[in-house]
Amino acid sequence: MRIIKEHGERRTEIIDAAENLFAAKGYASTAISDILEALNIAKGTFYHYFVSKEALMDAVIERYIDAEMAVAQAVADDPKISAHEKMFRILTDAGRDNERGDRLEKEASAVGNADMHQRTMASIVLRLSPILEGVVRQGMREGTFNTAYPKECMEILLAASEFILHGSAFAWSSAERLQKARALAWMAEKVLGVEEGRFSYLYKRYEGDGGCCDQC
Amino acid sequence: MRIIKEHGERRTEIIDAAENLFAAKGYASTAISDILEALNIAKGTFYHYFVSKEALMDAVIERYIDAEMAVAQAVADDPKISAHEKMFRILTDAGRDNERGDRLEKEASAVGNADMHQRTMASIVLRLSPILEGVVRQGMREGTFNTAYPKECMEILLAASEFILHGSAFAWSSAERLQKARALAWMAEKVLGVEEGRFSYLYKRYEGDGGCCDQC
Repeated sequence: MRIIKEHGERRTEIIDAAENLFAAKGYASTAISDILEALNIAKGTFYHYFVSKEALMDAVIERYIDAEMAVAQAVADDPKISAHEKMFRILTDAGRDNERGDRLEKEASAVGNADMHQRTMASIVLRLSPILEGVVRQGMREGTFNTAYPKECMEILLAASEFILHGSAFAWSSAERLQKARALAWMAEKVLGVEEGRFSYLYKRYEGDGGCCDQC
Repeated sequence: MRIIKEHGERRTEIIDAAENLFAAKGYASTAISDILEALNIAKGTFYHYFVSKEALMDAVIERYIDAEMAVAQAVADDPKISAHEKMFRILTDAGRDNERGDRLEKEASAVGNADMHQRTMASIVLRLSPILEGVVRQGMREGTFNTAYPKECMEILLAASEFILHGSAFAWSSAERLQKARALAWMAEKVLGVEEGRFSYLYKRYEGDGGCCDQC
């Protein structure tokens, strides 16, 4: 019996399979034929949905960013918590599946397509900054944040973070990366008018990242 | 008579010809055969120096950045002027051939190679930030600058400026771009500890850039 699937459902299945295969075998080692085999679909079906393996990776990334933004928006919309707590939860991915994100970031960079990478970074900046702007404005009402540019500060700090810390453009050592993250946290405190040290959680993840000794 | 040219001399000639042709006809409309014709050289000679038209554009950009950095370094090394004056001259390209730079930026983006673009932005950040760090340290000695991260502040501000204002990743309107530039100047004042308004020259070039009316 031939099973006719809804357009959106089939598309989702292909993205699911791709994400699993990219994670298991790596992007470079996954062939479109692996995806066809896993889903038992024809080549023509695949190309009805995606023009290439790169376009499929784009869709995998897009769906991941969608999910991340939904989580961030839900935190921002919570009427019971302070701006500082929201900022912390959103920026540290508290409680989220970091492993999945890290794996995806690694595989996405394996695509070796700078254009895709730049598109991803720009998308994060454009989508996350209005959410964080709302949090900053809440903080200003609460008297814990104080800045002349709530929107642009978030855009500029996010852009710098994406380009400097997450981009493939620089080959920093772990110690250098930690130092940039420290400076970025300090700058964020200055321009958002919060007390020094308040954003130190922003660089914790870079501490001991290939650091000085096993005890770190 | 066959003229044997020195390796460096020939390479420079090819870069000169490319830069002129890219400026006159545009990158996309310039063929390698145009360059061969202009210099009266064989195809083999060209490929001895450059693997492709893109590699040649890379060399054109690299040489331009070299020249820009030499000018910036000369300003930074001048023992007679203040840190504020140095910062102004370096960041506004005072007295330099801006038209050439603008034209080159336009042609480089016509290459449509995000990887090349990212490499260029990273190179500017990595090479300009130590020069500006020296200027900031001079300002700290003079008592006009005050920051905890002289090096990283310049890296992060330059990276944000390159990615947000000069990058191809965002499609801002003129008014939006001006607003980002204003915010970036304000942030620079905050994190470098200089008085508000001191860096307003940083966004002057974006004012009236396709602005509200002919009088602007």
